Amino acid sequence: MARKVYIDNIPLDEALEKFMQELEKCSYFKIEEEEIDTIEAQGRILSQAVFARLSAPHYPAAAMDGIAVKAVSTFGATENNPVMLQPGKDYIEVDTGDYVPRNFDAVIMIEEVNFIDGQAQIIKPAVPWQHIRSIGEDITAGDMICPAFTEIGPEEIGSLLTAAVNKVKVVKRPLVAIIPTGTELVNYGGYNMAPGEIIESNSQVLGNLCKKWGADYIRRPIVPDDKDQLLQAIENIKDQADMIVICSGSSAGKEDYTAEVVNKAGKLLVHGIAIRPGKPAILGIIDNKPVIGVPGYPVSAHLIFNIFAKPVIYKKQRRTPPPENIVTCKISRKLSSPMGVDEFIHVNVARIKENYIAYPLSKGAGVTTTLVKSDGILHIPRGSEGLEAGSPCNIILKTPLSRIDKTLISIGSHDIALDILRDELNKKYNLRLISNHTGSMGGIMSLMRGETHFSGIHLLDPQTGEYNKSYLKKYLPRQKWILIHLAKRIQGLIVKKGNPLNIKKLADLTNPEIRFVNRQKGSGTRILLDYLLQKENIHPDMINGYNHEEYTHLSVAAAIKGDACDAGLGIYASAKIMGLDFIPIAEENYDLCILTDIVDEKYLHFILSIIKDEEFVQKLTFIGGYDLTESGKMIDQN
Amino acid sequence: MARKVYIDNIPLDEALEKFMQELEKCSYFKIEEEEIDTIEAQGRILSQAVFARLSAPHYPAAAMDGIAVKAVSTFGATENNPVMLQPGKDYIEVDTGDYVPRNFDAVIMIEEVNFIDGQAQIIKPAVPWQHIRSIGEDITAGDMICPAFTEIGPEEIGSLLTAAVNKVKVVKRPLVAIIPTGTELVNYGGYNMAPGEIIESNSQVLGNLCKKWGADYIRRPIVPDDKDQLLQAIENIKDQADMIVICSGSSAGKEDYTAEVVNKAGKLLVHGIAIRPGKPAILGIIDNKPVIGVPGYPVSAHLIFNIFAKPVIYKKQRRTPPPENIVTCKISRKLSSPMGVDEFIHVNVARIKENYIAYPLSKGAGVTTTLVKSDGILHIPRGSEGLEAGSPCNIILKTPLSRIDKTLISIGSHDIALDILRDELNKKYNLRLISNHTGSMGGIMSLMRGETHFSGIHLLDPQTGEYNKSYLKKYLPRQKWILIHLAKRIQGLIVKKGNPLNIKKLADLTNPEIRFVNRQKGSGTRILLDYLLQKENIHPDMINGYNHEEYTHLSVAAAIKGDACDAGLGIYASAKIMGLDFIPIAEENYDLCILTDIVDEKYLHFILSIIKDEEFVQKLTFIGGYDLTESGKMIDQN
Repeated sequence: MARKVYIDNIPLDEALEKFMQELEKCSYFKIEEEEIDTIEAQGRILSQAVFARLSAPHYPAAAMDGIAVKAVSTFGATENNPVMLQPGKDYIEVDTGDYVPRNFDAVIMIEEVNFIDGQAQIIKPAVPWQHIRSIGEDITAGDMICPAFTEIGPEEIGSLLTAAVNKVKVVKRPLVAIIPTGTELVNYGGYNMAPGEIIESNSQVLGNLCKKWGADYIRRPIVPDDKDQLLQAIENIKDQADMIVICSGSSAGKEDYTAEVVNKAGKLLVHGIAIRPGKPAILGIIDNKPVIGVPGYPVSAHLIFNIFAKPVIYKKQRRTPPPENIVTCKISRKLSSPMGVDEFIHVNVARIKENYIAYPLSKGAGVTTTLVKSDGILHIPRGSEGLEAGSPCNIILKTPLSRIDKTLISIGSHDIALDILRDELNKKYNLRLISNHTGSMGGIMSLMRGETHFSGIHLLDPQTGEYNKSYLKKYLPRQKWILIHLAKRIQGLIVKKGNPLNIKKLADLTNPEIRFVNRQKGSGTRILLDYLLQKENIHPDMINGYNHEEYTHLSVAAAIKGDACDAGLGIYASAKIMGLDFIPIAEENYDLCILTDIVDEKYLHFILSIIKDEEFVQKLTFIGGYDLTESGKMIDQN
Repeated sequence: MARKVYIDNIPLDEALEKFMQELEKCSYFKIEEEEIDTIEAQGRILSQAVFARLSAPHYPAAAMDGIAVKAVSTFGATENNPVMLQPGKDYIEVDTGDYVPRNFDAVIMIEEVNFIDGQAQIIKPAVPWQHIRSIGEDITAGDMICPAFTEIGPEEIGSLLTAAVNKVKVVKRPLVAIIPTGTELVNYGGYNMAPGEIIESNSQVLGNLCKKWGADYIRRPIVPDDKDQLLQAIENIKDQADMIVICSGSSAGKEDYTAEVVNKAGKLLVHGIAIRPGKPAILGIIDNKPVIGVPGYPVSAHLIFNIFAKPVIYKKQRRTPPPENIVTCKISRKLSSPMGVDEFIHVNVARIKENYIAYPLSKGAGVTTTLVKSDGILHIPRGSEGLEAGSPCNIILKTPLSRIDKTLISIGSHDIALDILRDELNKKYNLRLISNHTGSMGGIMSLMRGETHFSGIHLLDPQTGEYNKSYLKKYLPRQKWILIHLAKRIQGLIVKKGNPLNIKKLADLTNPEIRFVNRQKGSGTRILLDYLLQKENIHPDMINGYNHEEYTHLSVAAAIKGDACDAGLGIYASAKIMGLDFIPIAEENYDLCILTDIVDEKYLHFILSIIKDEEFVQKLTFIGGYDLTESGKMIDQN
């Protein structure tokens, strides 16, 4: 099975230009229109300029409540010499909007009329045509109401209906057919899946992007890894669709295979682009329609679809893409990028005092939550080797800046309490909390660099047996901070339900049959483990899996739940959420260190009021493994 | 009928605060949720935080195509001392995403393996856990995927499905019931209407605004002016709706009447707000639900709905309103505003060199096209007396700034050729043309002030008989401009179909039975008329309707078509579009004066290439009344 994959490495801009040019060549962008009811037209694009059929007003109309008169009959009226007008003959009563018959040429406001025995007394002459809206004042029949390619909104619907334009010709919504392919893929809806089975979700992400861009989508059934079946799937839908998207499984072999099928069904233009992520992308033309093969990894699929499908879908509809919202940030850490590729990195963005900081999200292209967490994208163009930490960079924002301005970032150790804090801050104060999990020492480093508003930390000082304080004194001597107690929490061994390997204490981990899973270096839990092992004279080498690292308590529990290992050190809550057993080992302090220099006083107050709130305490108590009697207590400050 | 209306004059902020407070008091903003399929959830707001049900990956997964091995079995491998692995026992082949069984703990990339007779030759040791995605790397069961009140987009749908969250609890879409009321209103769909009948379109504008804001709407049948029927209409819908909107006819009397009915059905909070337009707005509560009575004029209705319905609809859903896009402009003309009111003025915005200029659109609250043309709103707060011409002001933009940066403005005389130019510029170059009709002299004034990119003018110099040149030399001696010939066009008398009054020449207008309609002072057509009248010794006083002014050729034709008058001077095209007769009187030059200092050279090129284009010439030739042989010729420059 010497399955080596040789694909192209075409620069991004060349690939896009080639794709667009080929589509132009086959007149793909010619307008296809349909006629629809005006009241259904919101969000649609006019395929032709629209002209008014009816004037508005379509008759001379009173602009005020009052009486319609002949102006000449009021000339000379004064307070001393009022003019008396006879109803019917000299005047008629009109409401705003009423027809002013042709024998009258002015309207006098009701407030300026004295009615005496049915006659109207006037003390000021009317100017001809006063308070009359002339025919066509709003819209004149024949006027162009909107030029071609206008997007119809509520306001346009109002004018069109007023001008008796009850149907409009609009650009057809393109139909995008999405074909997922891969034997390992299963439809969403299930829950108990065999190892190796993957829920197919890319098609729904791309389909919903189509909807955002004004197109419709149709998701076709999953096609297994079989060339003939894939070819057939394309043939079945190609007449109906305006664009075909093939969502490959994540293996490189499969994309290669999609390329072969595209080449057979039509013309393969590009296979392999100098882009990261998304290199194995495929571009082609089948029956004068675009075909895009997106890689299986969700972040890659999303990127390729945004770069190649979005401009095509917008152009096909003559829709102008919304302007990009770009903000200049400082990058939080060094980023290296190969010279030869265009690289796209999702980032979180928060404001620290006057600076926007971009925090790269980089757990790889397979991570769907990267797309959820992302505030925007950093593009490192071809020819650049990357960025030094702290250097300025332009971020294409997805999150509005007003939301970023209401964002707190917490880099450090993770606790479920932070998730609850995040939910409550958002619910009660519309304040967003981004929480990045780097462990307690990672938190201290971020505090030192002034890159995080606060950190959750639980660092045991082996000398004193105390938590956190000595670390802060050592590493943050010159910064202003406060240390707030969040909770005492129980650390223990997380083991499988029923504890089948009968693990009772740390020393049991030296049994080579027991597969341990550790936390990353610098995490408070790792420091605690090392402290406890030393106390008990257990050497790390004696533990099978000491070097197998996970980044959060829940990941440790998940690894045990999924039988990737048998035991790990973590908090009670993780074990409970996963339905695992728990052997208590130690109690520790989990505190928040908040940089008071850079956190808005109002926001500090929000944090503290939530931590001290009964609801917060109840939620954590319900989860269990916490002692919350001193939550919110100020422990130390600098 | 001494129908005087006394309504309140409550400041805007007080009215809004009172409304919101009353709604809080009746717990209107408590969350109402429903469970829906995740794949249908785009654009919806989560009512609760969502936690993952399944980890992703839910098994240890190969991160590369290659072979799964026990790392320990590769220790010591070098190029000189390769390790040979046996299939099945020492390794298995895996594709990206495949399950890595528990007896293996590393994956070696396919590129680093030499297959020899079915055995795998390895020349570099594997690090334990390399190229394996651990359980929960993307999502760990129990993780909070999104906090409450997150708006679900394509990316969230992807993560939710991956985490086996197939249904989500979301905030219910509020249902807004819209009741139009007014005996003069008729449903859209017709075309031939009696004088006084008005097409009801406000309900569709407000309903489509609701859709933009995340709510659903239901439009109820039009209720005639009858208190009992209106009360009944409210009773019929109040249980089903989350908000009731009553769209009054445009008369002040009617709003008064709506207030009485609201007071009967529930609690009237406010009737009459110190706001312009929109003063007679009504706010109330019926059965713990908000009721808004909007005035009948479309601009007023739109404003009141934006100020009072929008925040309620957003808050009810826990949706954050999109941030306002504010740009600082110079105002093109003086605006006076009464001290006691909050005034809102729609404006066009264009960029002239480095400055954004706001051009007030002020044809009154009855004009639906104001809402279509508007680029944004200027708010003159209570306590301000207005703005001097040229002073800075903040505009809340509706049009994106990127679109405004691609805008040309033309203030001056109107010709249908400008509409065609506008359509073509937009279609071919995505360049927007705003055209304001102030007449030729108005155009010259705007050119003098450098407020317009170009002007359409047709000004006869009675001394020389020449067009335009002498005016430009006199008024724009120091500016850089070019004068481009657009068309020769025929001016003539527009009369009713079949010319029932047998009008043949200008002198016929002295017949007092003939109702003339004039163009405004400063328009080229008015100057032409005055020139011709003087030549023929006809005094303006001899013409019935000389003082009745309209602002465009089409308005003149519409006034004749609608029997507001019998004859007017205008161009052939207007008569043709309205199906009227035309008696040619004179030929004139309609030219464009373009300020070359402030028009981008590229844009100038676009204008000229469209004017000289065969398609443009054909379209105008088809309309008729033009001589286009010299279109695009440069006549003069400075």
